[in-house]
Amino acid sequence: MATVCPTRDSYLYDQVGQLVVDMIDKQTLQPGDRVPSLRKMSRQLKVSVTTVMQAYGALEEQGFIEARPQSGYFVRARRRAEPQVPRKSRPRSEPRSVAVGDTVAAILAATKQRGVMPLGVANPSTELLPVKAMNRALARVSADQSLASIDYCFPPGHEELRRQIAFRTVDLGCNVGPDDIVIANGCTEALSLSLSAVARHGDVIAVESPTYFFILEMIERLGMLALEICTDAETGMCLDTLERELDRHDVRAVVTVANFHNPVGSLMPDTSKQRLVTMLAERAIPLIEDDIFGDLHFGETRPRIAKCFDRDGLVLTCSSFSKTLAPGYRIGWVIPGRFSEAVLKNKRTMGFSATPTQLAVAEFLRSGGYDRHLRRLRTAYRDQVQRMRYHVAQVFPEGTRITRPQGGFVLWIELPQGVDSLELHELALQQGVSIAPGTLFSPTQKYRRFIRLNAGMVWSDEVRGAVDTLGEIVHELAARD
Amino acid sequence: MATVCPTRDSYLYDQVGQLVVDMIDKQTLQPGDRVPSLRKMSRQLKVSVTTVMQAYGALEEQGFIEARPQSGYFVRARRRAEPQVPRKSRPRSEPRSVAVGDTVAAILAATKQRGVMPLGVANPSTELLPVKAMNRALARVSADQSLASIDYCFPPGHEELRRQIAFRTVDLGCNVGPDDIVIANGCTEALSLSLSAVARHGDVIAVESPTYFFILEMIERLGMLALEICTDAETGMCLDTLERELDRHDVRAVVTVANFHNPVGSLMPDTSKQRLVTMLAERAIPLIEDDIFGDLHFGETRPRIAKCFDRDGLVLTCSSFSKTLAPGYRIGWVIPGRFSEAVLKNKRTMGFSATPTQLAVAEFLRSGGYDRHLRRLRTAYRDQVQRMRYHVAQVFPEGTRITRPQGGFVLWIELPQGVDSLELHELALQQGVSIAPGTLFSPTQKYRRFIRLNAGMVWSDEVRGAVDTLGEIVHELAARD
Repeated sequence: MATVCPTRDSYLYDQVGQLVVDMIDKQTLQPGDRVPSLRKMSRQLKVSVTTVMQAYGALEEQGFIEARPQSGYFVRARRRAEPQVPRKSRPRSEPRSVAVGDTVAAILAATKQRGVMPLGVANPSTELLPVKAMNRALARVSADQSLASIDYCFPPGHEELRRQIAFRTVDLGCNVGPDDIVIANGCTEALSLSLSAVARHGDVIAVESPTYFFILEMIERLGMLALEICTDAETGMCLDTLERELDRHDVRAVVTVANFHNPVGSLMPDTSKQRLVTMLAERAIPLIEDDIFGDLHFGETRPRIAKCFDRDGLVLTCSSFSKTLAPGYRIGWVIPGRFSEAVLKNKRTMGFSATPTQLAVAEFLRSGGYDRHLRRLRTAYRDQVQRMRYHVAQVFPEGTRITRPQGGFVLWIELPQGVDSLELHELALQQGVSIAPGTLFSPTQKYRRFIRLNAGMVWSDEVRGAVDTLGEIVHELAARD
Repeated sequence: MATVCPTRDSYLYDQVGQLVVDMIDKQTLQPGDRVPSLRKMSRQLKVSVTTVMQAYGALEEQGFIEARPQSGYFVRARRRAEPQVPRKSRPRSEPRSVAVGDTVAAILAATKQRGVMPLGVANPSTELLPVKAMNRALARVSADQSLASIDYCFPPGHEELRRQIAFRTVDLGCNVGPDDIVIANGCTEALSLSLSAVARHGDVIAVESPTYFFILEMIERLGMLALEICTDAETGMCLDTLERELDRHDVRAVVTVANFHNPVGSLMPDTSKQRLVTMLAERAIPLIEDDIFGDLHFGETRPRIAKCFDRDGLVLTCSSFSKTLAPGYRIGWVIPGRFSEAVLKNKRTMGFSATPTQLAVAEFLRSGGYDRHLRRLRTAYRDQVQRMRYHVAQVFPEGTRITRPQGGFVLWIELPQGVDSLELHELALQQGVSIAPGTLFSPTQKYRRFIRLNAGMVWSDEVRGAVDTLGEIVHELAARD
């Protein structure tokens, strides 16, 4: 197996590429402009001329720039204008029972097939994860005579791990202590514990529309009803609509992915989070926030969590290390606020969490490499999202709309009129590419014309080829209309 | 930290002690009888005279035998006759909603306090577990560059692990394949997945009375109703009663711990299991069986699972390695029969299982040491159960009834008239001993005069002292009446 950690060379080379793509993105460099010379770029970034050459070669291959003999590199003419982002969603405003489970099962099964390019999931490439360091941490907790990793770790979970997680929330201006945290099997269980703690069979739960399909499946499993709230691709859940709906329906909880929403990638501004928390506190309605992508911001600042504005213990924050450290370790957590007893009670009968992986993550966090790792990871995801976004814009037909996420690693794409994402899913799978059709993200089977793509994979010829394949199929489907 | 695996010497020494206790138990040796001489025993068991001397010394200390100068060792007069087992339970026969969660939480919290002897849980001593081998297996799956343990392991779980579990069911005469198995976070999640797969909010679930409190907590969490069925301390759930109740109520599922019931230790005969499966098949009612103690039989033969008699896919078998290998690894499984789709659907939104511990258990099972380990473990548990049983008989007041489990490691004890187990729980805790009061095991707060004791701890002065403490308190409470 090849070395999985990026070498220093490839890291520098990516830095160069990123800078140029950024400049194009911000229109500092426009089509036809000359790209800074090899020598100039080399001086500016303090890297070798060879590194810059390699980076420019890659950018040329990716279609961003072109070489002109004797003159250097120039920004290529874009085939079309910057794609628009999808419009604000307009879901129906009645609570609905949910039945998405079977479709989700089929899609997941398709994704797991060997040889299929998994653009249908929202998973990071393992190459981006600190595999060596995590394995070392796991090896340390399994020292020959160690009893620590063998025995039960009762809820709320390993104390040092909770302490390390509490440390990290301090950076966000939240005063969360280790005893305010309950360890869960990934963010999925964290959400499931939270939802069961605050609502019951038959209760109405307000969710963004579209929303992450596992949230819908949970609502389905628990026999609750989903009320879809319209969502803006930039700013997230529409709070005016939510406020109106709260007056019309007996909503028992709100679930939001405020930071880098899955699938739309929106980032709810901190002022809106504060408004949301206040609005719900006035009505004593719990807010469950899924912050799994929060650490993966492309901008300078880590967005806050709604919990920071919570004065009444009504916010339950759920997250995990599955997108940043080790998906297979299943280390997530809840900050359950005033629902601590109920969450713990649920946790006991849903199964304690595994001890060795709790110890290993605590060990890794304690050793202090997490922030450095996150910085690299954010750069990588930003780069991958940007490249996939550009490439989709190049190869999908006119009329395609693409989100412009400010964090995370998924793209939400609105296809041209007449293209059915379920049909696209079938045809793409025959050619070895999986996607997530939009209907998965709504209890009312809306979003047939949308797909979600995973940009968590390291950008490569294979990924580009998969996007090309999708582009060709979408062209055919659109032409047929 | 001291070596945790028993040395060869202490193993032999235990063998000698076990043989003598067995002979006393079967009344081959009666009070006043001379115990075989050191020399004779040494020849017979092919161990050194010193080993036999050590074993006899321990038996003397434990009150089984006494030394008479110049004459050797003799069986001590028992203070009273062999204690009776508790009578068949007589629960009310109406479905009840359940609210045991808060008491369970309090008891578990008490048990976790530092310095408390945990007789209130049903946990093995880590000293009995293959700590070294499990740690080695975990270290092997965390080799430096290994990607395997980092990535998601989608339900139904790791293939090699499922294959190893399937192998083991073959010994039971069941034809279960790897694809018939779903990995879960311990038996608790396995039961939870099963219950949610076959029944819904408001449905009636028939359970043994008393039964394992987590089963009741699950029924509580899922908003179902529990119908308590009377249970015999030797043969388990009363099938005549069950059959009558099935005609009276719309029972949606039956949950049974047929092999070494928790807390009563009963073993349902295989013919009864067959009758149970047939009875339910005629009515198309699913049967969930918890087989977590099945491998811990004291007799020669591994009892069968109800699944072996299942022709219709209506039996869901749940188990785990938590009582035999590593509680903290959270490796359990379900054999869901025809409910496979529903179980998988639940599993997805309750959180995937951790990858490294799945790989480590698969590795351990593949290496072939499990059966040898189980043989030793069964001997240890049998010995511990017997010693605790004898000691309770010695130090608890006249009128105490004690189960005689044929496997597992818990004792269910009926206290004399007038003794309240909740009061005993409070008083014992003040003296550093936790117990499980009987009320935990019934949705109708029956069994106030019962307690469950954990004999999973290696027998020691501390454990004996804790039982002494309980005996004194029970004497006081009984005298006050």
